[in-house]
Amino acid sequence: MAEADVNYMKQALLEAREAYSRGEVPVGAVVVCNDRIIARAHNLTETLNDPTAHAEMQAITAAASFLGGKYLKDCTIYVTLEPCIMCAGALFWSQIPEVVYGAPDPKRGYTLAGYPILNASTKVRSGILEEEASQLLKRFFAARR
Amino acid sequence: MAEADVNYMKQALLEAREAYSRGEVPVGAVVVCNDRIIARAHNLTETLNDPTAHAEMQAITAAASFLGGKYLKDCTIYVTLEPCIMCAGALFWSQIPEVVYGAPDPKRGYTLAGYPILNASTKVRSGILEEEASQLLKRFFAARR
Repeated sequence: MAEADVNYMKQALLEAREAYSRGEVPVGAVVVCNDRIIARAHNLTETLNDPTAHAEMQAITAAASFLGGKYLKDCTIYVTLEPCIMCAGALFWSQIPEVVYGAPDPKRGYTLAGYPILNASTKVRSGILEEEASQLLKRFFAARR
Repeated sequence: MAEADVNYMKQALLEAREAYSRGEVPVGAVVVCNDRIIARAHNLTETLNDPTAHAEMQAITAAASFLGGKYLKDCTIYVTLEPCIMCAGALFWSQIPEVVYGAPDPKRGYTLAGYPILNASTKVRSGILEEEASQLLKRFFAARR
């Protein structure tokens, strides 16, 4: 694993922990552009009463706002959990060239669709700090049972 | 076609025309709950510099905010164009039981995925004022060529 990947995923994990502390499903994301974090976000569906307020959606909106344009060219998103279909669809529209995620989501991950939701040219890597992301989610759901 | 369907889709078309007048891809949506429009929105991706600002996304967020909860139970969304994969994913999370759309989207419609993105129980109807929705889109893209 590249050191930069680990460092950025650690930042996404900090966001996920922030979500956890608010009683939100703990998923976090950061958007990196030219070796700089330009957006950071965590899941806020409960806090905002908004089913669309996933970490990635907010990170995309914030990054586009920061860049002043709706395309996230030259950016990479780091997200602790595999994006769902909605978020993968949003990443498609954003034209982001690189997606890095931690843990797979065997229930709601976009790869389940078996359809190329992301652009064919989008590079996807996964498994970065997977165990940390996964443990945080397990702890969250165990505490709710 | 039921009269109520036509009336609500006319409202969604008014939103699409509003998008058109702002130079946005003309798609509009309304969310109806107990025979009342609780949210109305149109595509604002250019205006907001946000690739996620599709009509449906904003209508879902606004409707959930109005209801004070993240699930759109007992609601119907009327949208002038077939939802894309992102928006269908959002409709899944919203648990909305009914989706009515006007024109099909042969390029970006969610049905292209061939995967059940919406809940199996979600009722989908289409073709309501399809011609009007479709003509508006054609006019928009023709003027941009």
